[in-house]
Amino acid sequence: MPKRGMLIVLSGPSGVGKGTVRKAMFDQGGTDFQYSISMTTRHPRAGEVNGKDYFFVSKATFEHNIETGGMLEYAQYVDNYYGTPMKYVQETLAAGKDVFLEIEVNGAMQVREKMPDGVFIFLTPPDLMALKQRLIGRGTETMAVIDERIHQAVTEIKMMRNYDYAVVNDKIPLAVSRIREIIRAERLRVPRVYPEYAQMLESSELQPGNSEDKKGL
Amino acid sequence: MPKRGMLIVLSGPSGVGKGTVRKAMFDQGGTDFQYSISMTTRHPRAGEVNGKDYFFVSKATFEHNIETGGMLEYAQYVDNYYGTPMKYVQETLAAGKDVFLEIEVNGAMQVREKMPDGVFIFLTPPDLMALKQRLIGRGTETMAVIDERIHQAVTEIKMMRNYDYAVVNDKIPLAVSRIREIIRAERLRVPRVYPEYAQMLESSELQPGNSEDKKGL
Repeated sequence: MPKRGMLIVLSGPSGVGKGTVRKAMFDQGGTDFQYSISMTTRHPRAGEVNGKDYFFVSKATFEHNIETGGMLEYAQYVDNYYGTPMKYVQETLAAGKDVFLEIEVNGAMQVREKMPDGVFIFLTPPDLMALKQRLIGRGTETMAVIDERIHQAVTEIKMMRNYDYAVVNDKIPLAVSRIREIIRAERLRVPRVYPEYAQMLESSELQPGNSEDKKGL
Repeated sequence: MPKRGMLIVLSGPSGVGKGTVRKAMFDQGGTDFQYSISMTTRHPRAGEVNGKDYFFVSKATFEHNIETGGMLEYAQYVDNYYGTPMKYVQETLAAGKDVFLEIEVNGAMQVREKMPDGVFIFLTPPDLMALKQRLIGRGTETMAVIDERIHQAVTEIKMMRNYDYAVVNDKIPLAVSRIREIIRAERLRVPRVYPEYAQMLESSELQPGNSEDKKGL
């Protein structure tokens, strides 16, 4: 039985740039983990490819998936479903490969419930003060709207407490390399690697008395 | 008050190459953490410098340090004391700098008791089977001695369960870069960074109503 793969979840407040960072990472290449493609009931936009950008399915199919426990996480936005099919994630992990999800914060919390041993990474905006100044500078919003936007951002950033790591999206290549380092470090965590060592330590060749036999082979 | 530094502890079975890896890392440069120099009662060897390789002190001084709670960890080997003075570690962490210790497994467990939020890294030998074959191939030890050596190695490797990370010392530069990645990833852990965010989120400039004042400044 191969060692089970690791689940990596990238999430963060809407507008922080999750999709851009994820795309930059996979475009860069050298990723030794699999991207799990989301499923949606919305129509493909120009250029979007089924099975690459999304799995585009009917509402009936998506709802059947929900009812039969086939979704690892899902949400409904503006009359459309978006979510992560369970099957691909489970099969890939079972084959010993690591799986990468890039999903919304509500979805991430659903995944955390089901797979608490995943690695949960929260992407944060670099600077709230800068956001506020930018909104004020733009001059298109009233102060009440700006305060509301900032209040929402503060609430969203507080959600990072439910995650393992916080990565600032100040520069995309920096955010990508931080995420890569987190993944490499997590692979060295004792609870992840110990089962392999235990297996080696139990190996009969290391047991006393077996040495003579081996020598004679 | 600056953010508190992080304690990093490198340990592992005797003979695994802890000292070599630590030295290679600091010789390489670019280390943004401080090495905590050990204290000992043994005499300096040729070329060893007080305050660089060790703090060389008398037995009376070392024992006074133990009695007054001045040692973070210590052990006695062959009539000499070795240990980590508490003061330097505490002061450096309080100043917001990360501290690196390279110590024996018993010492590491003493540190874990006192500072459970440290990062504990276990350096492991690459291959027990190879060790056994090497001992057999050498032909200088009886099978009983070899079995005893292997048994001891197995026992020591099982100690990794008390650590956060396991790093294989297969090639020194690889072991060094794994340790560096662990340190960088650990700095992004939510429990370490959240206090800073909390401070930012509480900042009065982000509170509703204060925007107008700020604008007028």
